[in-house]
Amino acid sequence: MNTLTIDTSTIVASVAILNEEKLVGEMIINHQKKHSEKLMIAIDHLLSDGGLSIADIDVFGIVSGPGSFTGLRIGMATVKGFAQALNKPVVGVSTLEALAMNIPFAKGLICPLLDAQRNQTYTGVFHFEDDQLVRDMADAVIEIDDLIAFLKARNETIYFLGDGLPRFSQILQEALPTARLVPNYLNMNRASSAGALVLERALKGETSHYLEVEPFYIRPSYAEEHKK
Amino acid sequence: MNTLTIDTSTIVASVAILNEEKLVGEMIINHQKKHSEKLMIAIDHLLSDGGLSIADIDVFGIVSGPGSFTGLRIGMATVKGFAQALNKPVVGVSTLEALAMNIPFAKGLICPLLDAQRNQTYTGVFHFEDDQLVRDMADAVIEIDDLIAFLKARNETIYFLGDGLPRFSQILQEALPTARLVPNYLNMNRASSAGALVLERALKGETSHYLEVEPFYIRPSYAEEHKK
Repeated sequence: MNTLTIDTSTIVASVAILNEEKLVGEMIINHQKKHSEKLMIAIDHLLSDGGLSIADIDVFGIVSGPGSFTGLRIGMATVKGFAQALNKPVVGVSTLEALAMNIPFAKGLICPLLDAQRNQTYTGVFHFEDDQLVRDMADAVIEIDDLIAFLKARNETIYFLGDGLPRFSQILQEALPTARLVPNYLNMNRASSAGALVLERALKGETSHYLEVEPFYIRPSYAEEHKK
Repeated sequence: MNTLTIDTSTIVASVAILNEEKLVGEMIINHQKKHSEKLMIAIDHLLSDGGLSIADIDVFGIVSGPGSFTGLRIGMATVKGFAQALNKPVVGVSTLEALAMNIPFAKGLICPLLDAQRNQTYTGVFHFEDDQLVRDMADAVIEIDDLIAFLKARNETIYFLGDGLPRFSQILQEALPTARLVPNYLNMNRASSAGALVLERALKGETSHYLEVEPFYIRPSYAEEHKK
């Protein structure tokens, strides 16, 4: 089963092709948000280098949020286009669980952080149990102080990663002696990490019709809020 | 400091650009060994998507072996070409330590395995201490039984990864109850993992002139042995 997973939820644009046998290929671009320009070209190269055509893809994976509103829409529109045209199912994966999959052997809690502006962070809390990702806190947009209170009560090693790190790493390290920061090369979204979840769920039949999958923004955009 | 690291030591061709701030981009192609055809094109795309030209690269990284003899020569020749033309230093990294860097938070021993044919494996043993990669066994080409004897004596959790897994995973799991296999998406060479070591060493000034860096084959090729 060939899966193609797209992650444009943050400043990083990434595409990966995985099947049961291997990661066929992956592309990560972490420089300026020009996802709409770069995404289709990256997909073309990846398919061609992997000896595949788009019709060989059985399931399309999408990192569905939280994250950049525009980024999520570009990725979602692309995946829905493929799925509709080729009549293939879709698997949506949370941006935060995808990040946690970067470090599957970490012992303790994993806390991905995305900068949500306004002193808030999109975050979730996870750990691995028997090589499976387990959730300790639902994806949410919260104040950093509330996150610290939650994590303090757990008193475990906590691995932080994601684009919220530059903003929050100092306060987290001061408040939580057990905080550990994931190094840069594993600190941002990689479509292969999301793709591993996409493949796992697709193999269990946990797929959706493209009309059922929607971006998971968590909160309304500033424009939408303002309109109300 | 911008580093560009090439890994063509196995069937995987991979290129990554890293600096102190971030992983700028990465490309992984894991389908047939056509490194000589695909490598330069991948480098061109990566530079262009990262908003860089080849002259912006300060240090070139190369995964220098062990591995496929032809693959190592292609990567090495490319890096030496860049370094010579642009008068830039080079950092060479072992294929096995690069693999270990895929799972920096694993608690226990990390044992990368490359299929060396003739019932042998290229292997090394590592662990992480305070986020630093520490070596427990020098890179070597050995019989799988000798590796098992070495690891049994240590009695620790052992994480296996690399293209030797399909061949040796069954015998390892039978002989070592503490064996754990790394999932596919983190099981093969990624230039970003090597690149993290390249950047770390370059920042410490541990670079070489391009004439000093050579492929590390461990053993002579079949043709060379035969000639003797």
